[in-house]
Amino acid sequence: MKIEGRNSVYELLKTDKEIDKILVQKDLKDEASKRLINVIRSHKVKIQLVDKYVIEKESESTRHQGFIAFVSDYKYFELEDIIDATADKDGIIVILNEVLDPHNLGSIIRVCECAGVDGIIIGKDRSASVSDTVMRISAGALNHVKVAKVTNINNAIDKLKDNGYWVYGAELGGESIYKSNLTGKICLVIGGEDSGVKRLTKEKCDAIVSIPMLGKVNSLNASVACGIVVYEVVRQRSLQD
Amino acid sequence: MKIEGRNSVYELLKTDKEIDKILVQKDLKDEASKRLINVIRSHKVKIQLVDKYVIEKESESTRHQGFIAFVSDYKYFELEDIIDATADKDGIIVILNEVLDPHNLGSIIRVCECAGVDGIIIGKDRSASVSDTVMRISAGALNHVKVAKVTNINNAIDKLKDNGYWVYGAELGGESIYKSNLTGKICLVIGGEDSGVKRLTKEKCDAIVSIPMLGKVNSLNASVACGIVVYEVVRQRSLQD
Repeated sequence: MKIEGRNSVYELLKTDKEIDKILVQKDLKDEASKRLINVIRSHKVKIQLVDKYVIEKESESTRHQGFIAFVSDYKYFELEDIIDATADKDGIIVILNEVLDPHNLGSIIRVCECAGVDGIIIGKDRSASVSDTVMRISAGALNHVKVAKVTNINNAIDKLKDNGYWVYGAELGGESIYKSNLTGKICLVIGGEDSGVKRLTKEKCDAIVSIPMLGKVNSLNASVACGIVVYEVVRQRSLQD
Repeated sequence: MKIEGRNSVYELLKTDKEIDKILVQKDLKDEASKRLINVIRSHKVKIQLVDKYVIEKESESTRHQGFIAFVSDYKYFELEDIIDATADKDGIIVILNEVLDPHNLGSIIRVCECAGVDGIIIGKDRSASVSDTVMRISAGALNHVKVAKVTNINNAIDKLKDNGYWVYGAELGGESIYKSNLTGKICLVIGGEDSGVKRLTKEKCDAIVSIPMLGKVNSLNASVACGIVVYEVVRQRSLQD
């Protein structure tokens, strides 16, 4: 969805809607435009400075005033939706702890859908949100896996534990995923690109489980790591059938 | 490495060196430049048209004439190097069948390094090559895993079979990787983004093995799929120790 014009964009920034990016016409010299650019910057929203003809091409109205915001239409689920939907089964839930790259998020949603994951939980802050890029990369998987956004990851973990989930942080230094029992109601916490699972979140986990590292570099892309761990859950479950 | 100037770039195109991209100054009007641009296009090398100041900034000489080619310094291994290095052990080799996206290639190199893969084989045509982007994405892993480039993937498979390798194509429609015996000398063929493992290559494989798909979309990113299958090999081997 596109939101055009100075005032509309200004009002948009006051809401908590997901803004993918804002196209701003290059060389806007008036004070009102400069003020708005500063407000956008202070909200840490991605700005693309573009030529006027790009704005004209993207505009669906005649009142863009040099500003077009792209807003995500994705409707997040509630954590409770996911918990309720798995009340009578061994759910698999994936918590993403500061995964920032939209490509990683899209790719994670895709592998989670393939593995039959029941829900993905992301944090409100310091996390990639479901943007158009994420939708594109997820290749349709977003229609079939629930994504919830929570204010506090650690509170979400408490709630999941209260509902019978075992919470495992995927990190270096834990027991091998191949030696861990990953059956039952399982919640996997996957760390972000920068620093993996955060300390406080790690302390909330019932255990830390690790992908064996046999090389020298020993760092995996978040979506690849997520795929390997989630599929180990799938494998262990398939033995029970 | 940068190659600058019309003649140097022209000569470069006659070699089989990996060209990441060629920066070309915008608005070059002379006939010689136009001819070279056509030659570059016919080689399907990526062209970036940029302003003169970008060229000036990138240039390491004064003789760029509006053309700077970026050439990869990576030295490929030979298939024989990889076979010889695994003569006395159960090697794991990954063949990439038309993986085109440099991000996927970089990410695959990274997970292969973590899993202790002995070598990665890519085709000469219709494959991402080891470019600067790939090096960056691989996050240092390229220094620790051998990549060989071969003219013909199917001939490489024959050679691997002659040297005791079992060749498994990772594709939908085969036996579950969790029910397949993936011990011994293993070569995994991973398909590209477009169409998976090619028919002729599939026929060369000893068997097709599949990641169980439990969702509705059922398509995985090539690097995630590679990670899941390669780590199943790691898991099965860890049981033998």
